[in-house]
Amino acid sequence: MADISYRNLDKTDVFGHLQRVTAPAVADLDVGRIEAFDIPAAEGLHFNYAATPVSEELIDALGALAGEQQLIDKYHALLDGEVMNTGEGRMVLHHLTRGQLGNPVTVEDQDKREFYAHQQARIADFARAVHTERITGSTGKPFDTVVQIGIGGSDLGPRAMYLALRNYVAGTNEKPNLAARFISNVDPDDAGDVIADVDPETTLFILVSKSGTTQETLTNEAFVIEKMRERDIRGLNPRSHMVAVTSETSPLARSGEYLDAFFIDDYIGGRYSSTSAVGGCVLSLAFGPDVFEEFLAGAHAGDRAALEPDIRTNAVLMDAMIGVYERNVLGYPSTAVLPYSQALSRFPAHLQQLDMESNGKSVNRAGERVPYPTGPLVFGEPGTNGQHSFYQLLHQGTDVIPLQFVGFRQSQRGEDVEFDGSTSQTKLVANLVAQIVAFAMGKRDENPNKHFEGNRPSTLLYGERLSPRVLGALLSHYENKVMFQGFVWNINSFDQEGVQLGKKLTKEVLGGNPGPELAAYGRMLGLK
Amino acid sequence: MADISYRNLDKTDVFGHLQRVTAPAVADLDVGRIEAFDIPAAEGLHFNYAATPVSEELIDALGALAGEQQLIDKYHALLDGEVMNTGEGRMVLHHLTRGQLGNPVTVEDQDKREFYAHQQARIADFARAVHTERITGSTGKPFDTVVQIGIGGSDLGPRAMYLALRNYVAGTNEKPNLAARFISNVDPDDAGDVIADVDPETTLFILVSKSGTTQETLTNEAFVIEKMRERDIRGLNPRSHMVAVTSETSPLARSGEYLDAFFIDDYIGGRYSSTSAVGGCVLSLAFGPDVFEEFLAGAHAGDRAALEPDIRTNAVLMDAMIGVYERNVLGYPSTAVLPYSQALSRFPAHLQQLDMESNGKSVNRAGERVPYPTGPLVFGEPGTNGQHSFYQLLHQGTDVIPLQFVGFRQSQRGEDVEFDGSTSQTKLVANLVAQIVAFAMGKRDENPNKHFEGNRPSTLLYGERLSPRVLGALLSHYENKVMFQGFVWNINSFDQEGVQLGKKLTKEVLGGNPGPELAAYGRMLGLK
Repeated sequence: MADISYRNLDKTDVFGHLQRVTAPAVADLDVGRIEAFDIPAAEGLHFNYAATPVSEELIDALGALAGEQQLIDKYHALLDGEVMNTGEGRMVLHHLTRGQLGNPVTVEDQDKREFYAHQQARIADFARAVHTERITGSTGKPFDTVVQIGIGGSDLGPRAMYLALRNYVAGTNEKPNLAARFISNVDPDDAGDVIADVDPETTLFILVSKSGTTQETLTNEAFVIEKMRERDIRGLNPRSHMVAVTSETSPLARSGEYLDAFFIDDYIGGRYSSTSAVGGCVLSLAFGPDVFEEFLAGAHAGDRAALEPDIRTNAVLMDAMIGVYERNVLGYPSTAVLPYSQALSRFPAHLQQLDMESNGKSVNRAGERVPYPTGPLVFGEPGTNGQHSFYQLLHQGTDVIPLQFVGFRQSQRGEDVEFDGSTSQTKLVANLVAQIVAFAMGKRDENPNKHFEGNRPSTLLYGERLSPRVLGALLSHYENKVMFQGFVWNINSFDQEGVQLGKKLTKEVLGGNPGPELAAYGRMLGLK
Repeated sequence: MADISYRNLDKTDVFGHLQRVTAPAVADLDVGRIEAFDIPAAEGLHFNYAATPVSEELIDALGALAGEQQLIDKYHALLDGEVMNTGEGRMVLHHLTRGQLGNPVTVEDQDKREFYAHQQARIADFARAVHTERITGSTGKPFDTVVQIGIGGSDLGPRAMYLALRNYVAGTNEKPNLAARFISNVDPDDAGDVIADVDPETTLFILVSKSGTTQETLTNEAFVIEKMRERDIRGLNPRSHMVAVTSETSPLARSGEYLDAFFIDDYIGGRYSSTSAVGGCVLSLAFGPDVFEEFLAGAHAGDRAALEPDIRTNAVLMDAMIGVYERNVLGYPSTAVLPYSQALSRFPAHLQQLDMESNGKSVNRAGERVPYPTGPLVFGEPGTNGQHSFYQLLHQGTDVIPLQFVGFRQSQRGEDVEFDGSTSQTKLVANLVAQIVAFAMGKRDENPNKHFEGNRPSTLLYGERLSPRVLGALLSHYENKVMFQGFVWNINSFDQEGVQLGKKLTKEVLGGNPGPELAAYGRMLGLK
């Protein structure tokens, strides 16, 4: 194991040099560059960065920076169980939910890989029992719907993954075992809407809260139980329609009030929990444990590929370092994620949490204010939809926003029609290809209103078809990219102290002792 | 009518002064300011801007800038039928879909207000005929589902409005008449997913394309018809399950192949079309024509309120000018829309199109490059969900992002439970109030990781309950805000030339004559 040291980005030897190297024009795109600037990644994915403002000299410098900041060494250390979440004094173990890549990690004589694998096996058994109707609802009817109650990482990731695989499962001629719904917001219209729409007798609820104290989630649990009781269905016992996903030490785990409970722990942050029981329970119930296992295998393959030290053959490392270059040298404050796949409709919302909650920090690991920008604003919608929406600004607005395209050769369902000489899938891919070139190369026009400046950078992550394995690899790519960027910026990507103040002030309002400004706003919004 | 002249923002007399006035600290929020910096708007809405970095002196300067750029005069001119979409040489008439505020506007002896009202009446008749089962599916079954096929403005606005009203209608004990679904993406998995889920015999499709040539929409029409035929249901005629919303001169209008057709025209841009037949057809079918009429009445009231010349009593004008100040003087490149209402879950996606497609421009009305930033990046998700996601960066990231909160005193469904001493709705509002104060005032902490800088600006648009009228007023607020900002920047907010290059290159790919770069990317993505 290499000696690891931590320093700010601006204190590295390479950073000054990096700022002095001239960036090439993105518009100088050509076939040679497109074919050369392409890195194979896990599960048949490829990362193409031809349309970014980097040259061989810049790649050398970015590779040197990755080396100087010891990105791969720090990743190894994280895998080996080093306390990387310094603020909270915790290890960072979400990779272990997919498989073992580092040394065994043990907590109180418990091997953590065994712990996660054991929870996964328990969930698989439970899901099979539901699917084979050995476990049914309290009135004896089989479950056909699962509703996840959770917020933040207990909602965005699992929901995005569910949507990402629903059509794949339908396309392989296996109907999803259970339909999944999600309740997240404390707005009573969210739970009210879902509850009005499901059959209480055939619905299984998953209550997800690591701490067992999440305000929104406990409130929604109470809401759901109350509404089920109001239906007054003979023999219906809401409690036996509910499982918990929580930490072993939480009040939920100890309550004994749930049909069953599956466990996570403090070493997995909410936004990194899709591959733990948080995502595993709903995905295994919806699609079967085998599909979830494939998803984990893809993520594990992605995690392994990200260990490669050479930036030119490590897609994640290249993606991360180009992002740092665009943020800290070129000064672009935001980036768009644009998947040309309807299945990934909520994937950008998940990445928005993953990235902005991880790297939206102003202090380094030692608690000192950093003198450079850290995590960017991340947003996005699927293509081709976005083309008819915000792409106008991306093409002709006054600011440059780097773009992250994602695309696949095949659709998930495999159903298609030919219209006007081409299939829908061909049109989808043709649009994707056209956008990359349009953004990079632009178009001169005498009419300034029809002129396209070009020089708008983009990357492309592409593969054959969005299968569970490919989705796992895709998720792993972004998780590890965010991790690498956090290492470059010398920040802790694994805590979220920025969410605490709002919670504290909310309690003051609800507790009846708000400060004068809280009270003034509260009066406007009808609070007593 | 005042003489109107057009000049760039940096050429105004006031702009230099505006840059020299000192902005107050947002953290200096107090009760007096909260109560004073509050403007009543249409339909009981209020706009509160206490937590923005403006002083009385700055408001004077922003009001003077609005006067110098003749924002209200230009709005009057637009209402009177002036050619405000200069690039395409068209009038801008979406306000007329809600009612008459300016002089009558006539095109080829046709009064345009009469035209829009007539289409609305025709849609109302059609919807009533469907609801009373005078019009049924081709096998004689009543329609219970409507599927809108459209993209961009034919999708985002209508979809956002549908979601915004669904629970309101449910909460007034009137079940929606028809359930609505949407197909937009050319990805075959989008249409395939919806079609697999609906009953062809009881489903009515609305094909929406102003030009009648939108690639995605025509492709999805072909997909839907093919898949309905494949079901091989005796007596099913897909064509008599489909109405068109299009311009009278489009190929669709002339085809005679639809059950019926309702018309729009070139004076209404897609992103401004929710109050035209584009939104009217699906919303009238889903909720009844009366609900749609209420929605229009609210928008009309909003349009009227925006005519008020004094910035201190015009909520839209104040919102627009604060946005300009934050963009052009303080230099913030993005803004977040954060509705504390699950019903508005896709409202930010609609505003993203509305704003970024309207004002994401680099040239002024005369086609000259402007030397200042124009439209910002707009993104957002509903609260409280966002709090558990990207708010970390908003609170503690290195960049400041101005926030636009929206909230209501009451939920839509009116169903609620008390848990831990308060209802869900009270918790929702308490969280909203807490966030405004947390962002503005921050919190000192010895631990820099737990320190909140504060000084993060926000505005609040709030009202009693999200009814159809309030939704109309809310939509009008943002439409007119975007219009006012376009006037300040001296750009044309009503064309979208930036979407053309992508379309052209897509055609080259699909036509088999792509340039070398298109071909190289195409090979990677499996195109022949």
